[in-house]
Amino acid sequence: MENCVFQLEFKVRDYECDLQGIVNNAVYQNYLEHARHEFLQTVGLNFKDLNDRGIKAVVARADLQYKFPLQSNDRFVVKLRCEQKGVRTMFYQNIYRLPDEKLCLKGIITSTTLVNGKLAICDEIVKAIQI
Amino acid sequence: MENCVFQLEFKVRDYECDLQGIVNNAVYQNYLEHARHEFLQTVGLNFKDLNDRGIKAVVARADLQYKFPLQSNDRFVVKLRCEQKGVRTMFYQNIYRLPDEKLCLKGIITSTTLVNGKLAICDEIVKAIQI
Amino acid sequence: MENCVFQLEFKVRDYECDLQGIVNNAVYQNYLEHARHEFLQTVGLNFKDLNDRGIKAVVARADLQYKFPLQSNDRFVVKLRCEQKGVRTMFYQNIYRLPDEKLCLKGIITSTTLVNGKLAICDEIVKAIQI
Amino acid sequence: MENCVFQLEFKVRDYECDLQGIVNNAVYQNYLEHARHEFLQTVGLNFKDLNDRGIKAVVARADLQYKFPLQSNDRFVVKLRCEQKGVRTMFYQNIYRLPDEKLCLKGIITSTTLVNGKLAICDEIVKAIQI
Repeated sequence: MENCVFQLEFKVRDYECDLQGIVNNAVYQNYLEHARHEFLQTVGLNFKDLNDRGIKAVVARADLQYKFPLQSNDRFVVKLRCEQKGVRTMFYQNIYRLPDEKLCLKGIITSTTLVNGKLAICDEIVKAIQI
Repeated sequence: MENCVFQLEFKVRDYECDLQGIVNNAVYQNYLEHARHEFLQTVGLNFKDLNDRGIKAVVARADLQYKFPLQSNDRFVVKLRCEQKGVRTMFYQNIYRLPDEKLCLKGIITSTTLVNGKLAICDEIVKAIQI
Repeated sequence: MENCVFQLEFKVRDYECDLQGIVNNAVYQNYLEHARHEFLQTVGLNFKDLNDRGIKAVVARADLQYKFPLQSNDRFVVKLRCEQKGVRTMFYQNIYRLPDEKLCLKGIITSTTLVNGKLAICDEIVKAIQI
Repeated sequence: MENCVFQLEFKVRDYECDLQGIVNNAVYQNYLEHARHEFLQTVGLNFKDLNDRGIKAVVARADLQYKFPLQSNDRFVVKLRCEQKGVRTMFYQNIYRLPDEKLCLKGIITSTTLVNGKLAICDEIVKAIQI
């Protein structure tokens, strides 16, 4: 992934696999969310703290292309880059199995911010992620 | 189950099954929690509303005996009775597969209440569940 | 939703809500998956049974537009229609809060079938869903 | 914890927290399961591989004492010791918050083994965990 600004390694946990023996589709959104929140930490933002201050970062759209299934015992990395487009922050997040870097998921997460219940650009977030 | 005061029917959802093809152990706690919260509704208590008012009902202990595994497509019922013991509310919750009523789980959930951060008997809850 | 062929009612369970007090984004995929599998049952197909026979129905893409958040205590309905496009089965799945039918999520799930590990049209599925 | 034979560090992920803003009770079982399966790896056993060979390690009982809630951003460690008692393997698993080592959960997981569907002592497991 070009212009990757953050990456986080994980290992599949067996409870994340379903009866097909592969990681359940919904779980990939857990991985992506955790990677985004850890990325925010690295630029000085804490998701829970933002939330407690009335700044609700919410997902407006998730577009997930499943390329290859992760399974029990797999290690993998979530890579992330992001850009601001008006009120929307776009997170491009790919998942690669390790160590062979096989692409498993291509994700585009569109998030927006509600400040005191209204759609708004949150300068604090916009500045922080322009790294 | 004797003195059952509430019961709720469910159907296993495939994402709740793990790579052994049976419902993952942790998921049974989800079932029990949902049944407790639905029971509370029937006696006029709402878990989120209590929480928003600073009354935190928390689980102090969960003792779960797994008797027979639920699997894909199974229907089942959670049956519940409860009693107050000092600051603790004891929820006895069994899960039976349907339609054969085979016992799948015997659970004892001990819950307590933190009111504004301190362990306390919450009269509102105690009165409500003495039905 | 026009041409809806199946709908399934749910109630939000409190464990599905995250620290923002709303249903976590990933959980909507759980709802959609369960609705698809229940739909398949109505046309004579069982997801686990297909899987056990080497027919792996997998999600190739999930495009989810989050319109309005579900929260504790909400009832909602997942409505579904589907169409076959070559090797891909497209499931259009919307979630509406009840009773006001407010649109909460618009989802397009693209699924394909691996028969004995190879991408293939599964006649059994294609015929069953052409209702 | 005395005689601890394995420990694994984790960080709370925000999706694991519920509307009370703390890790949901069921999620602790996920942590314990993952720690057990990682422990098994260190003694040469793989949970999925055992399962594929007809050796089903199942939880017969989970006794979980919740001492202090984990919350967003917490790091913690699961410590584990185990002993064999007849057909049962007992896993004593405690969770401590880091870095202050505050005890959050005391768990006793009783597991048994079904070999080709029958309750049996699995020598392979018994030998491996006698370290």
